[in-house]
Amino acid sequence: MARLLWGMIGGGEGSQIGPAHRLGAQADGNFVLAAGALDVNAERGRAYAQRLGVEADRAYGDWEEMLAGERDRPDRVDLVTVATPNSTHFEITKAFLEAGFNVLCEKPMTMTVEEGEEIVRVAKASGRICAVNYCYSAYPMVREMRQMVATGQIGKVRLVVANFSHGHHGDATDADNPRVRWRYDPKMAGVSGQFADCGIHALHMASFVAGDEVRELSADFASTIASRELEDDAMVNFRMEGGTVGRLWTSSVAIGRQHGFDIQVFGETGGMRWASEQPNQVYYTPVGGRTQIMEKGEGGLSEEAARLSRVAIAHPEGFPLAVANIYVDLAAAIRGEAHGAYPTAEDGLRSMAAVHYAVASAKGRGEWVDARPPSLR
Amino acid sequence: MARLLWGMIGGGEGSQIGPAHRLGAQADGNFVLAAGALDVNAERGRAYAQRLGVEADRAYGDWEEMLAGERDRPDRVDLVTVATPNSTHFEITKAFLEAGFNVLCEKPMTMTVEEGEEIVRVAKASGRICAVNYCYSAYPMVREMRQMVATGQIGKVRLVVANFSHGHHGDATDADNPRVRWRYDPKMAGVSGQFADCGIHALHMASFVAGDEVRELSADFASTIASRELEDDAMVNFRMEGGTVGRLWTSSVAIGRQHGFDIQVFGETGGMRWASEQPNQVYYTPVGGRTQIMEKGEGGLSEEAARLSRVAIAHPEGFPLAVANIYVDLAAAIRGEAHGAYPTAEDGLRSMAAVHYAVASAKGRGEWVDARPPSLR
Amino acid sequence: MARLLWGMIGGGEGSQIGPAHRLGAQADGNFVLAAGALDVNAERGRAYAQRLGVEADRAYGDWEEMLAGERDRPDRVDLVTVATPNSTHFEITKAFLEAGFNVLCEKPMTMTVEEGEEIVRVAKASGRICAVNYCYSAYPMVREMRQMVATGQIGKVRLVVANFSHGHHGDATDADNPRVRWRYDPKMAGVSGQFADCGIHALHMASFVAGDEVRELSADFASTIASRELEDDAMVNFRMEGGTVGRLWTSSVAIGRQHGFDIQVFGETGGMRWASEQPNQVYYTPVGGRTQIMEKGEGGLSEEAARLSRVAIAHPEGFPLAVANIYVDLAAAIRGEAHGAYPTAEDGLRSMAAVHYAVASAKGRGEWVDARPPSLR
Amino acid sequence: MARLLWGMIGGGEGSQIGPAHRLGAQADGNFVLAAGALDVNAERGRAYAQRLGVEADRAYGDWEEMLAGERDRPDRVDLVTVATPNSTHFEITKAFLEAGFNVLCEKPMTMTVEEGEEIVRVAKASGRICAVNYCYSAYPMVREMRQMVATGQIGKVRLVVANFSHGHHGDATDADNPRVRWRYDPKMAGVSGQFADCGIHALHMASFVAGDEVRELSADFASTIASRELEDDAMVNFRMEGGTVGRLWTSSVAIGRQHGFDIQVFGETGGMRWASEQPNQVYYTPVGGRTQIMEKGEGGLSEEAARLSRVAIAHPEGFPLAVANIYVDLAAAIRGEAHGAYPTAEDGLRSMAAVHYAVASAKGRGEWVDARPPSLR
Repeated sequence: MARLLWGMIGGGEGSQIGPAHRLGAQADGNFVLAAGALDVNAERGRAYAQRLGVEADRAYGDWEEMLAGERDRPDRVDLVTVATPNSTHFEITKAFLEAGFNVLCEKPMTMTVEEGEEIVRVAKASGRICAVNYCYSAYPMVREMRQMVATGQIGKVRLVVANFSHGHHGDATDADNPRVRWRYDPKMAGVSGQFADCGIHALHMASFVAGDEVRELSADFASTIASRELEDDAMVNFRMEGGTVGRLWTSSVAIGRQHGFDIQVFGETGGMRWASEQPNQVYYTPVGGRTQIMEKGEGGLSEEAARLSRVAIAHPEGFPLAVANIYVDLAAAIRGEAHGAYPTAEDGLRSMAAVHYAVASAKGRGEWVDARPPSLR
Repeated sequence: MARLLWGMIGGGEGSQIGPAHRLGAQADGNFVLAAGALDVNAERGRAYAQRLGVEADRAYGDWEEMLAGERDRPDRVDLVTVATPNSTHFEITKAFLEAGFNVLCEKPMTMTVEEGEEIVRVAKASGRICAVNYCYSAYPMVREMRQMVATGQIGKVRLVVANFSHGHHGDATDADNPRVRWRYDPKMAGVSGQFADCGIHALHMASFVAGDEVRELSADFASTIASRELEDDAMVNFRMEGGTVGRLWTSSVAIGRQHGFDIQVFGETGGMRWASEQPNQVYYTPVGGRTQIMEKGEGGLSEEAARLSRVAIAHPEGFPLAVANIYVDLAAAIRGEAHGAYPTAEDGLRSMAAVHYAVASAKGRGEWVDARPPSLR
Repeated sequence: MARLLWGMIGGGEGSQIGPAHRLGAQADGNFVLAAGALDVNAERGRAYAQRLGVEADRAYGDWEEMLAGERDRPDRVDLVTVATPNSTHFEITKAFLEAGFNVLCEKPMTMTVEEGEEIVRVAKASGRICAVNYCYSAYPMVREMRQMVATGQIGKVRLVVANFSHGHHGDATDADNPRVRWRYDPKMAGVSGQFADCGIHALHMASFVAGDEVRELSADFASTIASRELEDDAMVNFRMEGGTVGRLWTSSVAIGRQHGFDIQVFGETGGMRWASEQPNQVYYTPVGGRTQIMEKGEGGLSEEAARLSRVAIAHPEGFPLAVANIYVDLAAAIRGEAHGAYPTAEDGLRSMAAVHYAVASAKGRGEWVDARPPSLR
Repeated sequence: MARLLWGMIGGGEGSQIGPAHRLGAQADGNFVLAAGALDVNAERGRAYAQRLGVEADRAYGDWEEMLAGERDRPDRVDLVTVATPNSTHFEITKAFLEAGFNVLCEKPMTMTVEEGEEIVRVAKASGRICAVNYCYSAYPMVREMRQMVATGQIGKVRLVVANFSHGHHGDATDADNPRVRWRYDPKMAGVSGQFADCGIHALHMASFVAGDEVRELSADFASTIASRELEDDAMVNFRMEGGTVGRLWTSSVAIGRQHGFDIQVFGETGGMRWASEQPNQVYYTPVGGRTQIMEKGEGGLSEEAARLSRVAIAHPEGFPLAVANIYVDLAAAIRGEAHGAYPTAEDGLRSMAAVHYAVASAKGRGEWVDARPPSLR
């Protein structure tokens, strides 16, 4: 089981997401960091890459340089992670796919639906992996929920309720804080604030667990802090292809909620709930019965949940290892081994469609709109 | 502090709500059951009233008989509780108010907006108390939240999220169970199922805690069990007079949620949450600070919260004593003493308006509608 | 179902325990307060009793007066509750039993083992009810646990862990507060502080749920606030007659624990835990299986748990209604109806023995001692 | 920041602890696996090491071979982890220390007090790091608790309550399961079962957080499953050097507790509690104030807690990253950088003393004994 070679674009020193990816890629010994263009400042990026163990000739100044340097190497990287600012994801992901690299792109995959369609096309044409980092879907107990739905353990799904709410942007006096401000400025964030930032994680989760896709939606957006142009709170009602009713609340002004990302799934014969702050349990209730606490690591879980857990029952595993699980699945896919259902470019495209059409719905005072990208209707 | 005389209509043997009212009225020694028309079966009602200690001549066969018997007594009852089937609330409440009795009416106060307007008019004209049993608003910690908002402890309220979801009607095979079926049959339940049954508790709670009223709303209703004509799941977005954004989810098919009635209130300088299954705590977070667990009975709570708690900190008090708190407030009001903000006919009217206009909105695919009764616009 | 007549000694205006008893006795309409000697100040007691609805001739100045006044009445009280200072329980309880009254005595029943033996003898001779207010044993879910053990649902009990810890006496600067100080002063509190105050609730709970009695024990007492003569923290290890191992921790300096009274019971085929701050749930785990959340009010509970619950599943019932359940059982017993296992004088005696012998053990550096009262060895 | 070279002894394919160490050592990029003697079966060990990326000439058949192979290499490993069966820890750790290697030894460090003393001597003489893997002490919030105590935020510590209870050995029918049986067989496990296996984690935690050492103890051991020679349940009362009272309960028959390792610390001016199943929160209560929920990653934590957290607030980090934190500290120590208080050979020795003297105390019916190893009295 030789290690795979891994390249990273973005995620330089001081970034939040960089360490999570490095830990995720390396934790299980699947990948070794072999190339990188880590920083918008070329010199800083080269230096940092070398400090992280990258050979000097593979410590690149920018992604074009990295593409040029890697594309013809016999030992070129097996996977490229794109963790740059959102507006650059499209261009970089497309270029590497076209050059025949496998890509893991941070969310959002693109800024427009059209770009998303393009990535799906390019990925398909390339025959390469194009994954999107909806990492919450890789928690063992999230995979278990998906399996339970898929195998009929709660019957046909009637209702999905997914929330992703926090309060970390609730301080209006903090409005000039650049780390916060850009998210609500359409010039930097695009058409949507909180829904594009967090809501799409919840929407992906709903689809992932229910094993179904969103068909139409109706959105109510609000900027509860008046100086914000984009929404900091949103409610999205939706219907899935199979008729499932969906409810999704997302907020960044819910002071006191730290990382309130949770999902509830209700079917004909049972219900389940899971919360990202306590990701190692699922509360499952068969209709007419008692709620049962399912634990990561317990006997009898699905192979997929078992495979993605590293330590015994009730030894908690957290967010960085959910990211690592994405890399576990990608490593397996690259090696041609069995792997779980990692999120793909199609998922990234669906998210973009949901964001853009939700914005349209919200502007239309909640009118119901088709949530699907044109190519997937 | 002589005991007040209390009369009850409905709530006969085997009813769910009867014991809660009897306990509520009598627990603190404020009221003594002096008259009753407890059962649709006159004989059974008379017999049961006497077993509960009512004198034979005040154990009535129906409410008309009770009205006739009580109206001219010098020792007529100080308060009448109306706990009959929903469709009769209007007629009985109106008749007793007109005869000069104080009335506590079970929710829903009426079946239509027009009836609600009528009750408000009659109550005003009578100068009597007309209360509606939104008993959750009488939990000490709910009163505390209201006080905290009123005294500016979380700043201007930006957002209220209120849910009331359970799964007790989630079993489709139970569809013919008459205890369940009528709630989704418009011939018996009126225009709305779950929203009218549980949702209005949450809507009242939102207004009560925020100290504001709902101005407009947009609703999405679903019958997730296809045989149901009325909704068993609903999402209502709303805006309050002061601009507060509201989100309300209610469901009866959320299998595994037992009594998922909770509220979150988010303001400029803090957030709070409370859940009816653990009603003795509020989780309060000042912006930028840590979440604090507030406990019923702790030092420094408002007079209103303190007054409505009977035992020391961390000795839990539950639902029946929340009902009792409504009676505590009514007893004080009848005696002309200071009391808390018990829910009134106006609250009952607002609920009816919200139900009817939410139904209209849902039929209009979520169009935003004025949520206020005509007289309160 | 005529109401029973109830008399109360102690529990005057401003007392903590008085309101809980009045609510408990009256909540379900079983008892009506007919006589009382409520206050050490005779006039204040008489006046308060009358304000509570007691006729003037039954509003007594002290317990002797009440005994004299009630003993020969044809309508004498059916039950006397003794809620006076601890050191007077013995004398009053004994006198009323000897006069043929049923008595509910607050804990501790007596101050010495010898007095406890005497009460047991007198109660037996009188043929009357002598109950002790270990009210936590009357929570529906505590009764359910007892039934589960009794019917073998967790197999033979191997281990019981009962804690009763709070932090309300943790402030040393509060040491001169008379409400706190007396509890650690042997002149007022007797031989034990925290163990006698709270620990015996936990010890009774262990016996009650396990359906077994404590045979021997070893105690470690500590006065963590040096100015205290009596212990404010104690650990008691014990063995029950059937071999069950017991662990009991009690503390009053556990700052942050509000009312940390909980019990865990572990048997051959399952385990359970219950906590008094959330008294409506039991967490039950069959060996090799998942933890199940049992809810007060759910279908299929024992008759005893069902009978002692007033409102539907997930409508919480709290401490005052646990006290009320003691009165429910006593009313049934007085009426000759079926009732649950309320705590008796024998339980009160066992507690006294446990306190005194634990003190001896602690002085003996934890030597194991027989925990049983002489008459019950 | 060049990677350090790491060697591992034990932790072969299929072992539980191996993956945790590999992830821990490699997650943050501090160590690269350069040498290993991973398996009692030499060939299997060599093959597995190579599959994990070790060069063939450093994939050893056993620890002696590894010692011989590494000791004279210029690029010899910077750290050796000993994760072999318990009875071999002493010999291997000693040999590597004597040869000048830094060692991280799994717990228990030795089987006897004398061996423990020997390791402490050898480690001191060598000038090398000898750490013991009490990895729970490396959770960020555990470090935070230690800092809070050290900086006086809860005043002088009065009381520590540490539990480590689970139910995974509660099935008597599983008694012949070799994975379980050996733990209760003195021929394989030594003098103690559950206390040596789990209890010493809790005891170390108590000392670590309180910043004090155990001076004397009294133990009550029980074999609740009769076929077991060694204890499966134990209670240990103790006193620390500074007078702090300690309570420690550990059990392996607590069916329903999954990984019930938690600690409560109570001081003059506050209390704290932490539980390993939700390791990212500490509940802190200042005396007279409300309980506050402290979150890993929140602003204002100590440098040590901040340094050991990788992702933002409320993104949970779990057990494998606590192990990783031990490696973070060891890497820093090896590099001569600032690091936190990782557990040392002295901690390992103290544990051995506590185990042996607790066994003696339990045999002596709970007599109080000196808990300290001879050299540290």
